[in-house]
Order: sequence, then structure tokens, then C-alpha cells
Amino acid sequence: MHTFDEAAQAVISLAQFCSHKGWLPATSGNLSVLVERDPMKIAITRSGADKQRLQADDILCIDEHMQVQTETAYRPSAETSVHIELYRKFSCGSILHVHTVFNNLVSELYGDEGAVPIHGHELLKALGHWEEDAEVSIPIVPNYADLARLGQAVAEAAHAEVPAVFVRNHGIYAWGDTPEAARRHLEAIEFLAEYVYRLGVARDIG
Amino acid sequence: MHTFDEAAQAVISLAQFCSHKGWLPATSGNLSVLVERDPMKIAITRSGADKQRLQADDILCIDEHMQVQTETAYRPSAETSVHIELYRKFSCGSILHVHTVFNNLVSELYGDEGAVPIHGHELLKALGHWEEDAEVSIPIVPNYADLARLGQAVAEAAHAEVPAVFVRNHGIYAWGDTPEAARRHLEAIEFLAEYVYRLGVARDIG
Amino acid sequence: MHTFDEAAQAVISLAQFCSHKGWLPATSGNLSVLVERDPMKIAITRSGADKQRLQADDILCIDEHMQVQTETAYRPSAETSVHIELYRKFSCGSILHVHTVFNNLVSELYGDEGAVPIHGHELLKALGHWEEDAEVSIPIVPNYADLARLGQAVAEAAHAEVPAVFVRNHGIYAWGDTPEAARRHLEAIEFLAEYVYRLGVARDIG
Amino acid sequence: MHTFDEAAQAVISLAQFCSHKGWLPATSGNLSVLVERDPMKIAITRSGADKQRLQADDILCIDEHMQVQTETAYRPSAETSVHIELYRKFSCGSILHVHTVFNNLVSELYGDEGAVPIHGHELLKALGHWEEDAEVSIPIVPNYADLARLGQAVAEAAHAEVPAVFVRNHGIYAWGDTPEAARRHLEAIEFLAEYVYRLGVARDIG
Repeated sequence: MHTFDEAAQAVISLAQFCSHKGWLPATSGNLSVLVERDPMKIAITRSGADKQRLQADDILCIDEHMQVQTETAYRPSAETSVHIELYRKFSCGSILHVHTVFNNLVSELYGDEGAVPIHGHELLKALGHWEEDAEVSIPIVPNYADLARLGQAVAEAAHAEVPAVFVRNHGIYAWGDTPEAARRHLEAIEFLAEYVYRLGVARDIG
Repeated sequence: MHTFDEAAQAVISLAQFCSHKGWLPATSGNLSVLVERDPMKIAITRSGADKQRLQADDILCIDEHMQVQTETAYRPSAETSVHIELYRKFSCGSILHVHTVFNNLVSELYGDEGAVPIHGHELLKALGHWEEDAEVSIPIVPNYADLARLGQAVAEAAHAEVPAVFVRNHGIYAWGDTPEAARRHLEAIEFLAEYVYRLGVARDIG
Repeated sequence: MHTFDEAAQAVISLAQFCSHKGWLPATSGNLSVLVERDPMKIAITRSGADKQRLQADDILCIDEHMQVQTETAYRPSAETSVHIELYRKFSCGSILHVHTVFNNLVSELYGDEGAVPIHGHELLKALGHWEEDAEVSIPIVPNYADLARLGQAVAEAAHAEVPAVFVRNHGIYAWGDTPEAARRHLEAIEFLAEYVYRLGVARDIG
Repeated sequence: MHTFDEAAQAVISLAQFCSHKGWLPATSGNLSVLVERDPMKIAITRSGADKQRLQADDILCIDEHMQVQTETAYRPSAETSVHIELYRKFSCGSILHVHTVFNNLVSELYGDEGAVPIHGHELLKALGHWEEDAEVSIPIVPNYADLARLGQAVAEAAHAEVPAVFVRNHGIYAWGDTPEAARRHLEAIEFLAEYVYRLGVARDIG
């Protein structure tokens, strides 16, 4: 567990890392770190902030009913509901939601199948799979405009085998026990998304 | 409204952002911020400046007849006429014109159809479209060498639904009410241009 | 030969270079510099460190039996065994193991053939091949989960002609007499991996 | 004309720009600025230097017979002969030789035709072509191992219409009257090389 200030600082560090990678384009995305599990309190980026230059007051303290716990002129992102559903389901400590061209591409190209299969790749070790022929399947859910429904769909699709869910034509939610673990998982899956896309393009060669 | 100095500083910040992204290659592109709407006065990059190291005197104050309002040895870019036509048509506060490989690719690949269709993508929210199956169409105009004609063509093709127009084999004009909004719109459309291109390449897979 | 501290500092510099390139995603990869050849002592990154912010105590001093020679709470990466096998076979002074999308792609696309052929390319000069029609073949070995076996396979496949071996769907081991040479070899092969991949995609054009 | 020190400083600035772009991988490439035309004296990077961290003594003063004019332990790159041939033929003031994946790809894909055609693209303006349907052709020469022969081939193929020549499977020579112009030309051609490659891949779509 963290104090809110520690969690907020961890969110800012994650935002700097993800911004630098270009993973938070056009003020999109939101990042959170758990402050307390019960009753639930999380530190999360506010709606519409430029993630490259987050200030302390861009991070809100939210309870499990999406109520803001600190005095602020800002309102939480509607996508906060997805974070809350995931914290409820898993004992994770940090959740990252970002949009990249490659995670969007695989979410669309494998969208009808509902999952992206990954087989026998070294970076699965970063997701906790150490066996030689590890095979995992990263779920894809439809991009519901109703965010309560999206939160339920993401939480339902999420399984313990992979700490991430793609939202079709939208982006990814990735999580971990700590901010470092969440970031490591996200990095690994972004690598795999680019790899899967590029391999698909090349395999067409014959 | 801004003072000229505030507008010029906003132009320099936008140029740093766009240069860092590699969106202003070979001294190309030009960026402007509105100073006053009536009579129109804008702060805009001069012709041929290296946008990575703009100085205060690289930003010119121009009226709606393309006359320079400040003492300077520099002349405005001929493409300033396109900015003026767009400020006339829309109540926007900032216009960004950049050249990227991906905006050029979609402008050419969809050039004969005259528009790039985008359907059901999350980043359309950054352009103000929040419905689940939002569908927009980003116009493409021919790259007229006559820049007065290009300005008219861009302004005619521009519609309220999307704050951007592609110029075929040339680049993009994107705008917004504020410098931040213009930048957000540009970021969203550059993401979508890369996505549309890469999806087209992959879909060939079958 | 170096002192351990000099070797550790060289490892940190290599890690900064490779991190900046994005070649060490999700805490993957490991980098080493030889301290003494006989008895063998090497400076190598510990398991699981974030390579973008290595501290002095993230670098371990290891002997040829993989025993840690310094007091530390950290344990060596299991992949250290591959480094030891390569130092035994070659008189090299530094070994770099990184994961990139492009080295993974060519390791998979050419995996069944067991090697990536490179012919008549200028960057082969960076690998020591100066003749006009130089042709080399970079070996690919299977990604054995048993790392002792992987170490043997890499060392067996390695030949004097090219200072690198691909591990299928995993990454690359590249080496050189000095840290600078190892880095130069790795840079050249990463360039060639991207080139080979992209040429393959384009040649499909006909 | 410059003093040697001014020219050397301009070379270092060009090297920082090109390194940052990733255009000088594995210590490859060489960059020069003219000091005096008659008798010819040029400032040029030495062989094998890491271009990301050039020191003053990494820049050599060379005459038209490739003799080093300053006391130094370093020797000039063999590719200096290509620079000398180009300074002899054109009244240019700076020459940049870099290796990129995209300039290598187009040099190979169009190698049998001996030139890359570019038609009606906005960035041709950066090369001095302002008409609406400008069409230019960038020459490609074989990658002769004999560098005197390569120098002659590059100089023969070079024509006034485009300030650049591709060397097949090797890289590009680009030049301009000033260091700024050489850099602008190189930036424009690198943009066009990536565009031509990616358009070729996409056009396969049909």
C-alpha cells in the first residue's frame, strides 16, 4: 500500500515513460495506482490532461463508486470505471490504459476471433510464462461506448494467464501487482503486438 | 485572444513539439496562432526557418491581406494564404501544417476518392465524435502549385465534422480553437493515418 | 583487461545506449564485459534489472562456474551461462544480448533454414568483411528453455565469420573484442535485420 | 569560405543531427564541409569515429590529393575520395554520406533501373523544384569496393537536377551550397525514400 502522494508520484512516472514512447497520443489514455484496497482508493489521471506534463493536481483520488475524494475542479475520466472493475477482480496494484498503432492493429485484425494468440515467444517470460512452448491468448473485447458495459466486458474477458485485455480499435488495458510490473507487462505486450502485426505482413510472402 | 508575443510563444512551443516528432522535415511546414479575429492578425512561422530552433524573429505578424505587420527582413511563406482562408471560414484559433510520410501515403492511396474514411475508431473522440460507430471522412484536395487556389480548395473542402484537410502528396492542415486543441487534433489524425496505412497493408493478407 | 569497476561502468554505458534504442524491453536482455580471461571473471547485469536506470550494484562479478564473486542480494540471470560459453570459445571482451522486433522477425522467418544470409551489403564492413561481394550467414538456434543447452547451442553455432547468433523468437547474442566493437557489431546487425525484413516484404511486390 | 575551425564545428553539428536520427549506425558514414575551394581544403570526419561523440581531433583537414594537412594520428576514411570528386564537379560547400534502412531499400529495389523516379511530390520543393508536376530522378550507382572508382561513378552519375546519388546497398551522398542546405536536401530525400518504399508496399494492395 502507498500513501496517495506516493501513488500519485508513481502515476506521474508511468505517464512520463508512456508519453516518451508515444503511447498516450492526443491526451488519450489513463493510468492508475492503487492506494488502498478496502475500502478501495486509487490515484488516477484526470480526463483530458496532457500526459507529457502532468502536475500533481492532474492526479485524482477516487473511491470504488468513482467519487472524487479530494477537492478538485477536475472530473475523473469515464474510463475510470474499467480500472475499478479490474481492481475488483484482480489483486493488482497498477493499471495502464494506452493507445498505440500496433495494439490497435492486432485488436482489429484478430477482432473477429476475440483473442490474439501468442506462441513460443521469449517475451512471454515477462508475463510469467517460462515453459519452452508457452502459448497464451490475449482477449479482445468490443469497444462499447457505454463505459460501465466496457468495464464489465474487460473484467469478464480478463483471465489470470495474461495481465492485459485489448479493446478493439481502441487500445489496451494492462496491469500488474506494482507500477513496475504493470509497465513491464505493457512493454512486453506492445513488443508482441508489433511482432505479431509485422510477422503477419511478412508471412504473406509465402 | 492573445497578444502577439503570447501567440508567437505558442507557435514556438508547437514547433518544438512537431519538430521533435519529425513532422517538419527539411524546413517544411508552417504553424500559426490567431492574435485578433477582426481585423485579422496572426502569428505565423516565416518561410524557410529551421523549425527546431525558432527564434522570436522567425515568427511574423500578418494581416488578412498577407501583409507583414512588424519590421522584419523575412517574408511570409506563400502557404500563409491557406491559413488565412481557414481562419476566415472557421472560428479556429490555431492552424498546423505538417508533412509526414503517413499523411502523404494516405493522401495518395485515397487521393482518387477525394477523402479518407475512418470508421468506429476510439481516437475519433479526440476529434469530438463520441458515438460508438462514429464515421468521418477526412477530405483530400489536389496539390495546386498556385497557393491562392490551394487556399480556396482547402477552405472549400474543409467541413465542420473534421478539423483537418489532406493535400495530396503534400501534407495536412489541421486546426483547433486553441493551440492545444489544434495539436490534439493533429496527433489524433497522424495516429489514424498510420493506422489506416498499416491496416491496408495487412488486410492484403486475406 | 579491466578492473571490475571499469568493466561495470562499461556495462552501464552499453545499457544506456541499448535502452535508448528500445532494445531492452520489459527488463529483458543482459550485457557483459570481460574483467579477466584466466581465471575468467566477467561483469554482467543482474536478473530483472530495469536497464534504463542501472545502479552500480545491478552489475555482478561472476566466475566461469556462474558463482557470484561479490557480496550481493541479487542473483545472476540464468542466461549468464550463454555469455560464459561464448567467452570460452572466442577471445572476445564484451557480449550483448538484446531483443528487438526486427531480430525476432528474421529469426522466425529464416528459422527453418537455420541462418540469415546477407549478401553484398555495405554494413558487412562493420563486421570485418571488405570484399565487394561479401556474403555471410548469421546462424539461428532454437530457443531452448534449458539455458545450459542454449549456451552450448549458441557457442556451437557461432563461427568466426560473424560475431553474432540469433535465437529463434527470442533475440540475439552479439560480441566483440571491446565494448565498442560489440556495440558496433550489434548496431550493424540490427540495421541488417530491419533491412532484410523490409526487403522481404517489398520483394513480394514483384 | 570558412576557417578550418568553423568548418570542423559545422561538421560536428551535422554529425549530432544525423546521429540523433540514427543515420550513422555502427560508426558508418562521413560528413564534410569545404574550407577553401582553390586549392581545395576540406574538413571531414576521420575513419571509424563514433559520430555521436565527435571530438575536435576527429575532424581532419584534407587537400584534394587526400593528404592530411594537420598533425594527427588518425587517417582519413577511404570514402574521402568520393567527397573530393563531388567538390570538384559541383560548387557545393558540404557533403553528407549516411546509411539508412530506407535509402538502402530504394537503392536495391530500383537498382537495376539505375535511378529512383520521384513525381509530383511536395518535398521536391526542398530540392529546388517548384513546378506542380515536377519529376526528378535520383541516380543509383553500383557499390564498387574500389573507392577511387566509386568516387568517379558517383561524380559521373550526379547531375544538377538533384543534389544526391544513391550507392546500391550502401547509402547516399547528398550535398548543398552550405551545411544547412546539405542537411535540408538529405532530410527531404530520406523522407522521399521512406515514402517511395512504403507506397510500393501498399500499392501491391491493388
